Amino acid sequence: MSGLPDHLRRPPRGMRDWLPPQFYALKHMEDVLSRVAESFGYRRVEMPVVEHFEVLAKKAGQEVINEIYYFKDKAGRDLGLRFDMTVPVARALSYSLDVPRPVRWYYFTKVFRYDEPQHGRYREFYQFGIELVGSSTPRADAEVLHVLADSLSAAGAVDYVVKINDRRAVDKMLEALGLSAYRDVIYRALDKKLKLPREEVVAVMTSGGVPRDKAEKIYDMTSEMPLQEAADHLTRLDQSLGAHYAKLVKYLDASTGLGGFRFDMSIVRGLDYYTGIVFEAFAGEYKLAVGGGGRYDDLLELYSGIKTPALGFAIGVERLMEAVGLHNVEKPLDYYIYIFDDEAYPQAVAVAKKLRSAGFSVAVELGEKSLKEAFEYILKIGTRYLIIIGKKELERGVVKIRDLQKREEYEKPINEL
Amino acid sequence: MSGLPDHLRRPPRGMRDWLPPQFYALKHMEDVLSRVAESFGYRRVEMPVVEHFEVLAKKAGQEVINEIYYFKDKAGRDLGLRFDMTVPVARALSYSLDVPRPVRWYYFTKVFRYDEPQHGRYREFYQFGIELVGSSTPRADAEVLHVLADSLSAAGAVDYVVKINDRRAVDKMLEALGLSAYRDVIYRALDKKLKLPREEVVAVMTSGGVPRDKAEKIYDMTSEMPLQEAADHLTRLDQSLGAHYAKLVKYLDASTGLGGFRFDMSIVRGLDYYTGIVFEAFAGEYKLAVGGGGRYDDLLELYSGIKTPALGFAIGVERLMEAVGLHNVEKPLDYYIYIFDDEAYPQAVAVAKKLRSAGFSVAVELGEKSLKEAFEYILKIGTRYLIIIGKKELERGVVKIRDLQKREEYEKPINEL
Repeated sequence: MSGLPDHLRRPPRGMRDWLPPQFYALKHMEDVLSRVAESFGYRRVEMPVVEHFEVLAKKAGQEVINEIYYFKDKAGRDLGLRFDMTVPVARALSYSLDVPRPVRWYYFTKVFRYDEPQHGRYREFYQFGIELVGSSTPRADAEVLHVLADSLSAAGAVDYVVKINDRRAVDKMLEALGLSAYRDVIYRALDKKLKLPREEVVAVMTSGGVPRDKAEKIYDMTSEMPLQEAADHLTRLDQSLGAHYAKLVKYLDASTGLGGFRFDMSIVRGLDYYTGIVFEAFAGEYKLAVGGGGRYDDLLELYSGIKTPALGFAIGVERLMEAVGLHNVEKPLDYYIYIFDDEAYPQAVAVAKKLRSAGFSVAVELGEKSLKEAFEYILKIGTRYLIIIGKKELERGVVKIRDLQKREEYEKPINEL
Repeated sequence: MSGLPDHLRRPPRGMRDWLPPQFYALKHMEDVLSRVAESFGYRRVEMPVVEHFEVLAKKAGQEVINEIYYFKDKAGRDLGLRFDMTVPVARALSYSLDVPRPVRWYYFTKVFRYDEPQHGRYREFYQFGIELVGSSTPRADAEVLHVLADSLSAAGAVDYVVKINDRRAVDKMLEALGLSAYRDVIYRALDKKLKLPREEVVAVMTSGGVPRDKAEKIYDMTSEMPLQEAADHLTRLDQSLGAHYAKLVKYLDASTGLGGFRFDMSIVRGLDYYTGIVFEAFAGEYKLAVGGGGRYDDLLELYSGIKTPALGFAIGVERLMEAVGLHNVEKPLDYYIYIFDDEAYPQAVAVAKKLRSAGFSVAVELGEKSLKEAFEYILKIGTRYLIIIGKKELERGVVKIRDLQKREEYEKPINEL
């Protein structure tokens, strides 16, 4: 028999298997990031990967709708795989109105986007993120940025840069320039500023009807600056916005320091639902954003009917792993117990039980391998100790222990293990 | 605005949201069960929830195929949501031929079945399970049953009963009775023996063409017995089968004891691919099986083209939680820090940082609540300590700590925290 053709042996396009060394790298990320979120009082949630399509579509712009894995069930219901966790969280909060506000929730789970797979872009991937629901203060903004910064550091991206902007600032600027009618095309152009040369970004705007001189002005006005300068800059556009950012800067200065933050008016984020602060996170030399988020004060009302301020961030876990170079974590076996025949089996399981209850991982020979074969096997899978219980050892109430790391061998009485 | 209609606020039919108290109950199960699997040297894997439909269909019988969430992607690929983890594991092993055998893998993850939702039956649910690939010895069978028994005990189902049978035994019996041609209908009938009265089970067989006297004989021959008696019973059907079970009984006697095991020739398991031992696990008074598994020595060849003995089990996590009465685990906040104004913010984040790095969960007031409101909030979410840093405390370098459990209040110098 020939088995599956090659392409069916691999996961579906744009998805990946997590065999043990990869899984434990992922698990390490889950542990580290969860610990950060928990330490800030966030509590974890999980929702179905399958959602009502209507619920997904309510948030998604057309671009995202095209990326939804969509299907009908046999009862004709329109379903889809979630493309983020903000939607399921908003849905769950729409019937959980008694959860005290602010709500601090986080997640570490799979989301799905039917996108063209490429470096750092999977069709099934993990997101870690938090949602802070029910507060509109600058301290809330600062807390979310604080958790983001601590998450990146804890994951090993100590050289993170978070580029911050505010949708209200961009809108004020467009208003001042009399360009509010061109908001969509200008957002689209700004979104490309990190990827394309000046000429092309300007061209996106002019081809959308923005006069050339104004398009150039917008390009130049949306340059990056230290976050410390943002408050003054924003005050010129809007007094209260400036005051909000003056506080935010003070808060961040006291918590994370300002070194990892920049203000960058070209950060607008593709998705349509942001209403205030928006940001993207970068890790060292890694080109793609490893995370992003912002404030979406109108989104929850779409689901619950109740106006509720909220913000959050999501980190692309595979990208972050890529950025910090975390690919494999080996989990060697602690003990392998070899016996020559059934006579020693009760002794082997008794020893194994003892070691397991002390927290060790222990495998007992299944009865097919010679000692030589067993030895080759445990070297391949990675093992710390080999325990041998032979006839002589059995009679004397001892086991032979081979330390595969130190390359030593010694005997130990069974009752001293 | 009115928000979503009620049915769209809830998860899709047959699926569920895991809000924090439910999530931490699930997480407890994940931790406990993973620890058992790891202690036996099993290593965790995860695969995409989306699979090639062809890969899924290769294992599934028609019954299961009808339960697959099926869809086409935009490139016309036939895809489906996995209905178990044995299939993705078999697929992954088909290109991982260099992983040393035996392979010990486990999983704790979501699977999907488009079934009629009812008590204990979800359309999206968690399975914990192991696969032991590459061994056909009775010790391998014993190890898998050992891990199953320890998993059930560790999860709190100390009164588990695992009902064991062997497909080869049933086939030998049918051969002896000259009924091999009626295998399918007899398997179908036996599968109902735990649920239907004798008359109806016999009727399933007779309506399939089995003579009435033989149908009754089969019913009576497939009664439950202590596992100790299985070897003798099987020896009468087949010498080598009897010898296999004599060893299995000896192994289990040495490891878990035999109290939790029964031999029951009516256990056949619906799925078609089992080739040897099959079993189902029950927990206390809970009616439905909480887990099951068996040996499938022909399955991996369908994927890899290479004959590979294997067996495993899967536990339905939601059912096991139901059976042991685990529904909610509360995770109270350790510290809530209240400050009256921005002046104390740097102090608050410094205290929070200290406590977080000591492993505590700490939330800092976001600046919207009065002390009274904050107090009501932290009582609702569940909090151990309230820390208050007011003007006076700030001047004296102390914080006020209210222990909400002991209902005490005291002061502490900040540098002694």
